[in-house]
Amino acid sequence: MAKSPHIKLGFILHGVGRTWNDWRHPDRDVNASTSLSHYQQQAATAERGKFDFLFVADSLSITEKSSPHYLNRFEPITILSALAATTSRIGLVGTLTVSYSEPFNVARQFASLDHLSGGRAGWNVVTSWLGDTAANFSKTEHPAHATRYKIAAEYLDVVKGLWDSWEDGAHVADKESGQFVDPDRLHRLDHQGEFFQVRGPLNIKRTPQGQPVIFQAGASEDGRSFAARHAEVIFTHAPTKEEGQSYVADVKARARGFGRDPDQLFVLPGIAPIVGDSDEDAEARYRELAALESIDTGLGFLSRTFNDHDFRQYDLDSPFPDVAHIGLDSQQSGTLRILAEVRAENLTLRQVAERLATPRGAFVGSPETVADQLQQWFEEGAADGFVIFEPLPGQLELFVEKVVPILQARGLFRAEYEGTTFRAHLGLSEPENRHAAARRAQSAA
Amino acid sequence: MAKSPHIKLGFILHGVGRTWNDWRHPDRDVNASTSLSHYQQQAATAERGKFDFLFVADSLSITEKSSPHYLNRFEPITILSALAATTSRIGLVGTLTVSYSEPFNVARQFASLDHLSGGRAGWNVVTSWLGDTAANFSKTEHPAHATRYKIAAEYLDVVKGLWDSWEDGAHVADKESGQFVDPDRLHRLDHQGEFFQVRGPLNIKRTPQGQPVIFQAGASEDGRSFAARHAEVIFTHAPTKEEGQSYVADVKARARGFGRDPDQLFVLPGIAPIVGDSDEDAEARYRELAALESIDTGLGFLSRTFNDHDFRQYDLDSPFPDVAHIGLDSQQSGTLRILAEVRAENLTLRQVAERLATPRGAFVGSPETVADQLQQWFEEGAADGFVIFEPLPGQLELFVEKVVPILQARGLFRAEYEGTTFRAHLGLSEPENRHAAARRAQSAA
Repeated sequence: MAKSPHIKLGFILHGVGRTWNDWRHPDRDVNASTSLSHYQQQAATAERGKFDFLFVADSLSITEKSSPHYLNRFEPITILSALAATTSRIGLVGTLTVSYSEPFNVARQFASLDHLSGGRAGWNVVTSWLGDTAANFSKTEHPAHATRYKIAAEYLDVVKGLWDSWEDGAHVADKESGQFVDPDRLHRLDHQGEFFQVRGPLNIKRTPQGQPVIFQAGASEDGRSFAARHAEVIFTHAPTKEEGQSYVADVKARARGFGRDPDQLFVLPGIAPIVGDSDEDAEARYRELAALESIDTGLGFLSRTFNDHDFRQYDLDSPFPDVAHIGLDSQQSGTLRILAEVRAENLTLRQVAERLATPRGAFVGSPETVADQLQQWFEEGAADGFVIFEPLPGQLELFVEKVVPILQARGLFRAEYEGTTFRAHLGLSEPENRHAAARRAQSAA
Repeated sequence: MAKSPHIKLGFILHGVGRTWNDWRHPDRDVNASTSLSHYQQQAATAERGKFDFLFVADSLSITEKSSPHYLNRFEPITILSALAATTSRIGLVGTLTVSYSEPFNVARQFASLDHLSGGRAGWNVVTSWLGDTAANFSKTEHPAHATRYKIAAEYLDVVKGLWDSWEDGAHVADKESGQFVDPDRLHRLDHQGEFFQVRGPLNIKRTPQGQPVIFQAGASEDGRSFAARHAEVIFTHAPTKEEGQSYVADVKARARGFGRDPDQLFVLPGIAPIVGDSDEDAEARYRELAALESIDTGLGFLSRTFNDHDFRQYDLDSPFPDVAHIGLDSQQSGTLRILAEVRAENLTLRQVAERLATPRGAFVGSPETVADQLQQWFEEGAADGFVIFEPLPGQLELFVEKVVPILQARGLFRAEYEGTTFRAHLGLSEPENRHAAARRAQSAA
C-alpha cells in the first residue's frame, strides 16, 4: 500500500486543559473535565471536521500537587463508550495501561467498544511511568522500565489472541437447526507465558474491525522498538520538525527491520496549534496563554517527569541540579531530552522551567500559516499526521472552520470519511483472524 | 424513612435471551447481544415506563457449550456508558466481579459512569461463581467460597474509601486565586488490609450521588450476610411468593442486626412476566416459549450450576445422580435448592432438567392478572419490587403499555421520576463523605 496522500488528524479530548494553569483562562469551563456535554461538543466538532479519531489520555496516580488535568478526569473506556453513542464515524482511541489491568478485561472492553461503535475503537497501549502508581494497586514497587515492555509485549499478544477467539463464521445462530455457535470456529487461547496464563475464549464475537487499532506512545529506546514492532499508530512528541523527521525515519526503519510495511505505521506528533485571524493575532493569543503560567508550573512539570522529585528546593538561577540518576527509571525519553538541552545550552533551573511551562510549538499563526506548517511537516517526512490539543477554548472550532478547508482544498485531507470503520479512515488493513488464516493455509496445501 | 409506597422496577438488558433456546423465537434478533440499537430501544422503552433502573448481568468464562446469552455479550461498563448518553433519568446498574479486577479501576469506572450519567450509576458486586474463570486471569484456582466474601468485603471498603477521596468542597477551581484543589479536602486512603493495599486519592472528584448504589445478589449463607451488611438493593431469585417472603424477612432481620434501617434495603426478585390479552393468551405465549426448549437445555443449565460437571453421561430416567460434593464450592444456593427438591420429591434427572429448562414463574396472565400478582408479592412482603426479564420479544413493551398504567392507577408505581439521580428514584439517602462527617463531628465537639 502506497503512502497515504492524506494527513491523519486526531483530537485529544480534554477538560481543563493540558498545561498547569490554562484552566484559569476566562473562557475555560472549570467543570469541563467531568462534563459529558463538553466532551460531546468537542467530539461533534472534530467529527464535523472529518478528524480520524478522538484520543483520551490517562494516568493512575495523583497527589494534591498534581496538574489540574490529572487530578480530575473521566476513565477513558467510559467516556469513549458514551461518545460511541453520540458520534457515527470518528475513531475512538483510549489509553489503558498493561501494568495494572487484566488482559481478559481489557480485550473485552475494547472489543465491546468496537461493537458499540460499529468498528471505531483504538487502544493506546501504555506501561505507566509514575513510580507511585503501584501504591494504588496493592503492589510494593513499579516494575523496572525494561520489564514493563516485556510485560507489554506478552500482554498485547494475549489480547490479540483473545480478539481472535471467534472466527467470522463462528456465530451461526441458525434458528432452524438450533446451532448457535460453530465449535470449530470458536477457539480457546491456552496462553501459557512468563507473565500471563489465559485460557479463553473471549465472550464476545469478532469485532467489526477484526481488531481495534493499536496505538503506542513510547519514545525511549525500548519504547521505540515496541512501537515499531506492535503499533499501527504512534502518538509522539516532536518539538521541532527535525526531531520529527529523525523520529519518523528511525521508527519506520525499525518497522521495516521487523518485516513490516512502514506505510501501515503512522507517526503522529501531538501539537497545540494556535490559530488567529493573522500571524500577529495568533501570537497575541499565545501570549495570553503564556501569561497564565508561572515558574511554579514548570517546576511542577519537572517534578512529575523526574519521579516526583521536589525541584522547589533549588535556587532558580543556579545551574540546573544534578538529577540524572532520578530520571532513568521514570519517563526516560522526557528526562533525557531535558538533560540534553541543559548540557547543550548550560541552562539554569528557571530557564528550563519557563520552557516547560508554556510550550509554544511550531503551529502558531493565521490559518494559512498553520496549514503551511502542517503541510511542510507532512511532506518533508516529519509526520504522517497530528494529534491536536486545544490550548485555548475555541481553537478546535477555529481549526475545523479555518484550517481544515485549506488542507482539503490542497488535497491534503479528506472531504468525506472513506468508510464506516476507523481502519477504513486510516487505510489500515484488517488483521486476518489467525485461525481463519491457518484454515486457509491448510486447505491450500 | 418509612417503607416506600412504590414498587421498584428494574429491567435486565439482554440480547438473545435468558434461556438456552429462546433466541430461536421467530421475532428474536440473533445479533441483539452486541447491537447498541437493540439495547437503546430496550432502555428507551424502560425509561418511558419510568423504570428505576437498567441492569446488566455478567460472566467471565465460556466454553463452546455455554448458553447463547453467555457466549456473546457486551462488557457491562461499556454498554452502560453508551446508554448514559442516550437516556436521561433511568438508573444504570452493572455487574462487576471483585475476584478478577482492581478496586482502583472499578472505583474509577463507576465514579466515571456516575458523572457521565448525572448520578445514575449502580454497581452489582459479585464474587464470580464459576471455577474455570480463574483460568482466564492467570490464576491456578478460584478462591474458596468463604474467602471470596472476605475479599469482597475488603474490596468494597476500599472502593467506598476511594469514592470519598474528594470532599464536596475539594474542587475549588478559583480562577482569581489560582487555587484548583483544596488539599485539606482531598484525601489519601492509605488502606493497608489483608488483601489490598491502596494509597489513593481517586483521580475523579466526588460523584453526583456521592456513591453509586450498591447491589448484591448473594443467596448463600455468606452471600446473605454480605448483602444484608453492604447492599442497598438485593437482586434475588424467588421461585414462589413464600420463598420471597422468607428471604425478605431473613435479610431485613440481618440488616437490622447490623444496625441498618431495613427500609433502606430493597429486595428485588428477578421475574420473567408473560403478558397476554387474556390469561389464556398469556398461557399460550408461555407454551410457545416452552416449545423452544429441550431436555438438553436443562442438562446444560445443571452443568453450569454444578461447576461444568457433565450431566449428559447419566441416564435421564434414573434417579438424580449423587453430585452433592461438586456443587458445594460453586453456586452454593442454586445447587442446594436443586438437591433439596430432588430429595423431597425423589426426582429423576429428566424431571429436574425439564423444570430448569423453562421456568414459568408466577407472572403469566392478562395485564390485570400480572398486576395483581405484583401487588400481592409487594404488599405481602415477598418483594420491594422486581427485576424484569423479557422472556419473549415484545414483552417489555407490553409490560410498559399495559401493566405499568394499572400499577400507576393503583398508586403502586410512580407517574413521574422523583428526581434526576438513581438514589432519588429509590428514596435512598446519599452516604455522607467520611471526611466531611469527621470534620462536622470535630467542629461540633
